[in-house]
Amino acid sequence: MISGEWPVLAVDLGGTKIMAAVVLPDGKVLSRKYCLTMADRGPGVVIDRILSAVNGAMAQAQLKTSELIGLGVATAGILDAKKGIVTTSPNLPRWHNVQLRDFLAKKLGVATYIINDANAAALGEHRFGVGRGFTNIIYLTVSTGIGGGIIVNGELYSGADGCAAELGHITIEVDGPQCHCGNFGCLEALASGWAVARKAVERINQGEKSSIIELVDGRLESITAETVEIAARLGDQLAANIVRDAANYLGVGFANFVNIFNPELIVVGGGLSKMGDMLLKPARKVVRERAFKLPTRTVRIVRARLGSSAGVIGAAAYVFDQQLGNREKA
Amino acid sequence: MISGEWPVLAVDLGGTKIMAAVVLPDGKVLSRKYCLTMADRGPGVVIDRILSAVNGAMAQAQLKTSELIGLGVATAGILDAKKGIVTTSPNLPRWHNVQLRDFLAKKLGVATYIINDANAAALGEHRFGVGRGFTNIIYLTVSTGIGGGIIVNGELYSGADGCAAELGHITIEVDGPQCHCGNFGCLEALASGWAVARKAVERINQGEKSSIIELVDGRLESITAETVEIAARLGDQLAANIVRDAANYLGVGFANFVNIFNPELIVVGGGLSKMGDMLLKPARKVVRERAFKLPTRTVRIVRARLGSSAGVIGAAAYVFDQQLGNREKA
Repeated sequence: MISGEWPVLAVDLGGTKIMAAVVLPDGKVLSRKYCLTMADRGPGVVIDRILSAVNGAMAQAQLKTSELIGLGVATAGILDAKKGIVTTSPNLPRWHNVQLRDFLAKKLGVATYIINDANAAALGEHRFGVGRGFTNIIYLTVSTGIGGGIIVNGELYSGADGCAAELGHITIEVDGPQCHCGNFGCLEALASGWAVARKAVERINQGEKSSIIELVDGRLESITAETVEIAARLGDQLAANIVRDAANYLGVGFANFVNIFNPELIVVGGGLSKMGDMLLKPARKVVRERAFKLPTRTVRIVRARLGSSAGVIGAAAYVFDQQLGNREKA
Repeated sequence: MISGEWPVLAVDLGGTKIMAAVVLPDGKVLSRKYCLTMADRGPGVVIDRILSAVNGAMAQAQLKTSELIGLGVATAGILDAKKGIVTTSPNLPRWHNVQLRDFLAKKLGVATYIINDANAAALGEHRFGVGRGFTNIIYLTVSTGIGGGIIVNGELYSGADGCAAELGHITIEVDGPQCHCGNFGCLEALASGWAVARKAVERINQGEKSSIIELVDGRLESITAETVEIAARLGDQLAANIVRDAANYLGVGFANFVNIFNPELIVVGGGLSKMGDMLLKPARKVVRERAFKLPTRTVRIVRARLGSSAGVIGAAAYVFDQQLGNREKA
């Protein structure tokens, strides 16, 4: 039997929710099951919840694990993908060097791979989304944090330890604000969802007027990037300025990727990408101002297409690649 | 006859001098010929001088062009390598969209390839230098300007147009000083030879005391990075501070490359790399402070090994790769 006929089980492990899905080799999702992560309860509980979501998706697809080609887990955090370990994850408290891969492989009796969630989304967009047919792609998920994925020469690039493409954690302002990763002036600390929300709180606390305050009933701690976006669309000046600043910083990041990678495509996913041109138009302008002409003429900066399924679809594509690779070596 | 038995002709076209060499498949240089570029006389004169250097190297090796597997030209500037065009080059005045490849191919009757000089050096170090046996390498030449080369999965990465790896032109300080490329706060504008020299002039003009002034007999316009290095070694405080600042900025750039590429090796060549630990020690410290732990543990930051021959050796390696690639496709 060849791999083309076999489904893959895929999991997207996020800080808030878990999605388990059965995915076919053509990227179609056969079944899908969600549950809350309950990340604050620690790795043991989270892994139990992964198993329960997985069983749900398998039952829905009427499949047994013996009928699977493998399991792919897309997860937030810094992975030692080659060893199958989640070394640390900002959204998964108490996950330090968790041997996720081998545990799940043993428990489910199926070949298991782990992959960074943004890497997975990059691969998904390349195989089945907006990146189809392109050779060199930079993928950026701009949501609470900023994650990245790199496709070079048509393949996912993962580096020496499998933890490459931390594209949100490049310094673009040496003495900029501190990032959750410990560094200063990261792209994520200037253009992510949490950076936008933090900036709004900071400037309101400094006495600036904004309709954001009414939108959250004066509870500044509940401001999110979405609140700021809504206020901006309603004509709020402070909100519009904060979004424009974030877009400009994002453009600086894009310009760096254009000069480094000379890619055909920069694909932008994640919650903030839903802002569309409000975010991408100023960012594209910054690229034209800052990056070299030749690669700027080539690159297209576009929104991702696969939405919230990008993680599972990409994790599945990763499993197909790995299993085919193993077969070719054998 | 297989390529292993055939020599390659290689040229390194720099802003100051041209080196032509006959290189064997094992990276050994059979013959070598230098001449001045005379860049200010424009493309026509420069190309004549390339031809004269080439003839010199061929005569010295007692070879005819029919005995060559090909010609590789490493050149400064932004290349459209796929079209064989030098689109622009800061060190080669009046070079705008010069069809260098096809002109030389016709003139010499041999398959010709052009490649960015830092890309060539990266490939040279990977095949025959300090990068031998490594899979993922970031190469940085830190000299008057800063150039780069990227080796991923054991191969030179050149992007959609062949102009990738402009690693000196990533913004690390959004509102930093303007770079020759037009952008602001580029790594090159903060850590290159010209940036170091400019900073020294600027601070002396602001009234700071320094032994640099005596070293150049009061002629501030003749200050180079080397002058600053010498003064620093002689204990001059201003010079030491300027070198340390440049090293710190270089470290910020390295940290970005570590988070983006998770490489095994960062190789540093070019004139300023001769400073050795004076430059690399503070830079390594910055990487430990700014980059993620896992890729930081993996990466080694080392000096290049091939010296001034890196360009011709790398250009030759590029020709071998291309010709072998063509043969495999055929």
